[in-house]
Amino acid sequence: MTKAWDGLVYIGTSVDGQVARPDGSLDWLLSRGEAAGDAGYSTFMERVDVILMGRATYEVVSGFEPWPYAETPVVVLSTTLTDGQDDRVRVVRSLEEASDLFHSMRAGGVYVDGASTIQSCLAAGWVDELTISQVPVLIGAGIPLFRMLPHDVDLVLERSVVLGGGMVQTTYRVQHS
Amino acid sequence: MTKAWDGLVYIGTSVDGQVARPDGSLDWLLSRGEAAGDAGYSTFMERVDVILMGRATYEVVSGFEPWPYAETPVVVLSTTLTDGQDDRVRVVRSLEEASDLFHSMRAGGVYVDGASTIQSCLAAGWVDELTISQVPVLIGAGIPLFRMLPHDVDLVLERSVVLGGGMVQTTYRVQHS
Repeated sequence: MTKAWDGLVYIGTSVDGQVARPDGSLDWLLSRGEAAGDAGYSTFMERVDVILMGRATYEVVSGFEPWPYAETPVVVLSTTLTDGQDDRVRVVRSLEEASDLFHSMRAGGVYVDGASTIQSCLAAGWVDELTISQVPVLIGAGIPLFRMLPHDVDLVLERSVVLGGGMVQTTYRVQHS
Repeated sequence: MTKAWDGLVYIGTSVDGQVARPDGSLDWLLSRGEAAGDAGYSTFMERVDVILMGRATYEVVSGFEPWPYAETPVVVLSTTLTDGQDDRVRVVRSLEEASDLFHSMRAGGVYVDGASTIQSCLAAGWVDELTISQVPVLIGAGIPLFRMLPHDVDLVLERSVVLGGGMVQTTYRVQHS
């Protein structure tokens, strides 16, 4: 089946490409992110019909009060969680199951979140747009946004803007070969 | 001795932060870099009194015809090369020896080149400015610009410009704590 949904990434990284410290903490981002304000997040979320995240990201956000995704459906990719354990999310076992679900929902924009899920979707050719907000700090170690890929991924620059606090936010379209 | 010279980095990376493929090749950069034109390189070089690079970078550029650095002195950091083997360069054994040499030359701007030398200088607090030109491609594997650091390095955004071919060139000052 041809993929009918768009995989959209919207994520903050340090200039050295980490999405979190090794223990998952985001202090370096939160302390600098405030100056950037909304950073285009509301506009981005208008295009999102459903959110896909991995188990690790779910475990971080599941403790947030209030739940940050309002009415937007959240799908968690996990082989260990049980569907129904948390009625705010739907659990799927594989990317294929997630994609089938997105088709049955007639989803257009899918917000792909979490380094590991982004990486799997990139490798599968399921990411169509990347918005990366680079925060002006090097943290040296952490969870990298990008890892190994089976092939080059060509990008086309859509726009790059400077936000408050020295954040540089760049949006690319993925050029599928 | 207080460091009297400025460590300046000017380098191209893929969006996933690699400076070269695992075998050192730059095809992904050269094929896209042409559209960016001079990319501020001549203006940058006006501020450079001397170039510092590691042995790996030296081995790549030593075969270039013509020698790309004209009259600018080149210092190579290496424990294996012998000084005098190549009269276009001066070989030093340590960063400390390099810094002493820069002071004796009364150098102002030092172009710090090569991922490994940049990393050592960052860890030592010897990088003062970073200009990173991000080329719109993910290559997945390679030689990363950034690695482990003993501490966070705070950056201050100086400017970010979009160049031809979708290259985003961002300059940061390093905030020394």
